[in-house]
Amino acid sequence: MKIVIIGSGNVAFHLAKAFTQNEISVSQIFGRNETDLKEISEVLGIPFSTEKLLDADLYVIAVKDESIEEVSKIIKEKNCLVAHTSGSVEIEKLIGNYRKASFYPLQTFSKTKSLDYDKIPFFLEAKNDQDFDLLKKLAQKISPKVMKSTFEQRKYIHLTAVFACNFTNHLFAKAKEISDSQNIPFDYFLPLIDETVEKIHQISPKDAQTGPAIRQDEKILNSHKKLIKDKDAKDIFEVMNTSIKNMYKNQNSEL
Amino acid sequence: MKIVIIGSGNVAFHLAKAFTQNEISVSQIFGRNETDLKEISEVLGIPFSTEKLLDADLYVIAVKDESIEEVSKIIKEKNCLVAHTSGSVEIEKLIGNYRKASFYPLQTFSKTKSLDYDKIPFFLEAKNDQDFDLLKKLAQKISPKVMKSTFEQRKYIHLTAVFACNFTNHLFAKAKEISDSQNIPFDYFLPLIDETVEKIHQISPKDAQTGPAIRQDEKILNSHKKLIKDKDAKDIFEVMNTSIKNMYKNQNSEL
Repeated sequence: MKIVIIGSGNVAFHLAKAFTQNEISVSQIFGRNETDLKEISEVLGIPFSTEKLLDADLYVIAVKDESIEEVSKIIKEKNCLVAHTSGSVEIEKLIGNYRKASFYPLQTFSKTKSLDYDKIPFFLEAKNDQDFDLLKKLAQKISPKVMKSTFEQRKYIHLTAVFACNFTNHLFAKAKEISDSQNIPFDYFLPLIDETVEKIHQISPKDAQTGPAIRQDEKILNSHKKLIKDKDAKDIFEVMNTSIKNMYKNQNSEL
Repeated sequence: MKIVIIGSGNVAFHLAKAFTQNEISVSQIFGRNETDLKEISEVLGIPFSTEKLLDADLYVIAVKDESIEEVSKIIKEKNCLVAHTSGSVEIEKLIGNYRKASFYPLQTFSKTKSLDYDKIPFFLEAKNDQDFDLLKKLAQKISPKVMKSTFEQRKYIHLTAVFACNFTNHLFAKAKEISDSQNIPFDYFLPLIDETVEKIHQISPKDAQTGPAIRQDEKILNSHKKLIKDKDAKDIFEVMNTSIKNMYKNQNSEL
């Protein structure tokens, strides 16, 4: 099977690397950015081109969401499978007379950081079982966590990641503003943050909750409220405390 | 120097263990719960009592916030230092004619989990330099992260931890509600969560931010908004997105 990866960004690089490491041969990486393609090509030993797209059985389009539609049009072959790697785009956005699919790795990729690819979950969608099985076999060579998912489900997957990762990171940023204001080094909080995350590898986050809000400790909640000057931090504080209280409301009244 | 730890909960256990491991001798653990004290005593080889408090140079009161005041009254000695371990209590809540201090380890403790004590930051406060230096030497035997902090600062430290850990955990719990609703295993998100936290060990959370809100991707934001049914999740979604947009407002307009 001939595989071509289209794109020269972080997702393209890491997918190409994950394929190569797991003895899945990639015939070409194709894109517009010659500098980036050349770099990937040299690191992974995969031929690249900015002009002539190779014939292939599978094209993996690993480009920004907003470019998928346009990029998908350059594939003129019919007897091939084309998969994009986005969690937020329907497979119908792929424009061409080929078979369409989605090959969505749930991970943030940065070029410099090496990743354990076997920990990355893959969410797959294809229009027919044969294509799905092909993608499944590929993904399973990389990771044990492979799951079928519709576009609707991918949206929820993305939303879950937004809550669990994007919002979480923003909480760290707001927390750092608070500790910075008192000249307390933010890295003093890293062990506690690590511990918080380690805990949810063992028990469900709902069972792991601690802090003043779940204890309904109004004295501490009020004293904290007075410390917060920033409007957004104040809003986050209110909304999170309300949500925590609501999640455990019935539980507490049973105590 | 004779040290007595008062309390039989998780903080008392882990402090006693951290002391013992670092060749700081603990003369007694004292408390009300005989079963728990006996267990700690057997594991760490420290004598315990529920009745007769030993004379000591340093008493570390490791009990719940609301019990500190009451417990502090049982120390009748004058020529001694008494330190509580709370981030949320003034040292003035210690009632007695002894010297007063705070010895606050920033970590969540659970009895079953073993901890790397050398990663735990200690925040210290004492009324005079000699007492402060004594506590500093003790803390530094356990951890390299030792810092002076006033009660006012401890409140900010606690508040930072609430944002970075308690609220973060609640985001995980709300995220799990979303993935559960689609029968997507929440543990599929753990590698991404781990990666999110690993990143802030290397770069500041402000620089690590990703996701639809910082990209001002209104299309995705709207499509996500429509997926959320739960009122609290909706409120969290709105407040977090607004706060992310505000944090990077000037930055984006410069792009």
